Amino acid sequence: MKLIRYGNPGEERTGVQIDGVNYDTSFYVKDYDEKFFEASGIEHLAKYVKEHQSELQVIPHGSRLGSPIARPSKIVCIGLNYADHAKETNAPLPAEPIIFMKSTTSLVGPNDDIMIPKNSVKTDWEVELAVVIGKKASYVEEADAADYIAGYVLHNDVSEREFQLERNGTWDKGKGCDTFAPMGPYLVTPDEAGDVDNLRLWLTVNGRKMQDGTTANFIFKVPYLISYVSQFMTLLPGDVISTGTPAGVGLGFKPPIYLKAGDIVELGIDGLGTSKQNVVAYAKA
Amino acid sequence: MKLIRYGNPGEERTGVQIDGVNYDTSFYVKDYDEKFFEASGIEHLAKYVKEHQSELQVIPHGSRLGSPIARPSKIVCIGLNYADHAKETNAPLPAEPIIFMKSTTSLVGPNDDIMIPKNSVKTDWEVELAVVIGKKASYVEEADAADYIAGYVLHNDVSEREFQLERNGTWDKGKGCDTFAPMGPYLVTPDEAGDVDNLRLWLTVNGRKMQDGTTANFIFKVPYLISYVSQFMTLLPGDVISTGTPAGVGLGFKPPIYLKAGDIVELGIDGLGTSKQNVVAYAKA
Repeated sequence: MKLIRYGNPGEERTGVQIDGVNYDTSFYVKDYDEKFFEASGIEHLAKYVKEHQSELQVIPHGSRLGSPIARPSKIVCIGLNYADHAKETNAPLPAEPIIFMKSTTSLVGPNDDIMIPKNSVKTDWEVELAVVIGKKASYVEEADAADYIAGYVLHNDVSEREFQLERNGTWDKGKGCDTFAPMGPYLVTPDEAGDVDNLRLWLTVNGRKMQDGTTANFIFKVPYLISYVSQFMTLLPGDVISTGTPAGVGLGFKPPIYLKAGDIVELGIDGLGTSKQNVVAYAKA
Repeated sequence: MKLIRYGNPGEERTGVQIDGVNYDTSFYVKDYDEKFFEASGIEHLAKYVKEHQSELQVIPHGSRLGSPIARPSKIVCIGLNYADHAKETNAPLPAEPIIFMKSTTSLVGPNDDIMIPKNSVKTDWEVELAVVIGKKASYVEEADAADYIAGYVLHNDVSEREFQLERNGTWDKGKGCDTFAPMGPYLVTPDEAGDVDNLRLWLTVNGRKMQDGTTANFIFKVPYLISYVSQFMTLLPGDVISTGTPAGVGLGFKPPIYLKAGDIVELGIDGLGTSKQNVVAYAKA
């Protein structure tokens, strides 16, 4: 199943995508949030959709897509989880996963604008496979981790490198700016996501291929990451773990390349769809 | 005004404390959450309490106190914001504030147990003044920062030093374990909080004074911190900025002293009350 959310920012309604067509399910499910995932919502929704597909309403063409999940309690990110990316940033291979957190206020829809923060000169891109947690996870065994996965989402882990690396303190400073987490187009449930250890993922800027990797190059795979993160904090239904980015970020070029207003970023992962963000200058909301 | 929340974990009801007595306000305010702060809830509640004080019900004696605020969208913490604490941890004075994030699943009531995580041997304490944000804050000017403060809360920023400093990656790994953010007893509104740049704060373990500092030793003061953090992420109503800890943490002793099951931690800040946590070994929930 593929879950979508659509409508104006902050007023998104739920839906599903079937054979490329988006249908409204908002009369059945209010939102794809903690309560939904906690109550086995995906299972109930799948049953409902199966029984009532002919009655579902197609959503208006051209509707804006929101993030396919509501604002979670947390977005946990894994740093340097591809050997080629660690190399390009001159970082040693991590002996165990690097964890940082992205402010959940950075979450936006897959095709919303990326806004360059005020005073930013080093806004960068990162195509990532994000995992959505399906049930409360604490000290999960790696062998049981699959039971805790609600689905997978395409994520652009937008990053301000000066804020992240040169402004004192943890990476969190450069990861949580508004619009820095475009997610979607849809959440894909595990049964439809294919082999997540062998998905191609790519990103272009103004049509130029910048990232072209495969999750086959993960240093730490998804079940291990879920188990690992759950040793340090409890994951709630709807929480996100973003699994790191392959080589090809702006920081890795010599000289580095960063985003500027007018740029167009497109990204995709096999089976998880594509997204497209226009880059815009800072403007007061 | 002093806001409290009381009742079983996850089922807390709202209340206020007046002259040391706790009154229920749950028929008027469902929770002290983002919506409450966003809708000028404190102002409305103050008016209501003033007009109806004689009708308020005293809450049952011995009721458990929860965190005085509901789970926020984020808990942003400031590292090394007291010169004496920076020195004891052998860290240079920060040129600008260090930011890290605490998983919001770590939030508990002021007198709840601190649970030592599985495999932890370096669980430590940190008495802190936490600021609760009253309205959406993005690129706030320092001179305007006071307008964005809902109130102040006593916070024990419990920290696992091995997870934080020796396990690869950012500090977040050692800050967000379950029970690592006891907050309260109450949120104190700015009009009753006194001079927050001159509050004594202290912490004892088994009755031994470990921390005894004053916010007069802040490197970066509260208005600057609000302005600063709001350059990197949007703060939502109900969000927390915890302002750092003075000298006297376990890590600073030679040899270091860490918490063990059976220990009792007590802490307080002038005007913000006191809290007391029993330290317990890990047990599966």
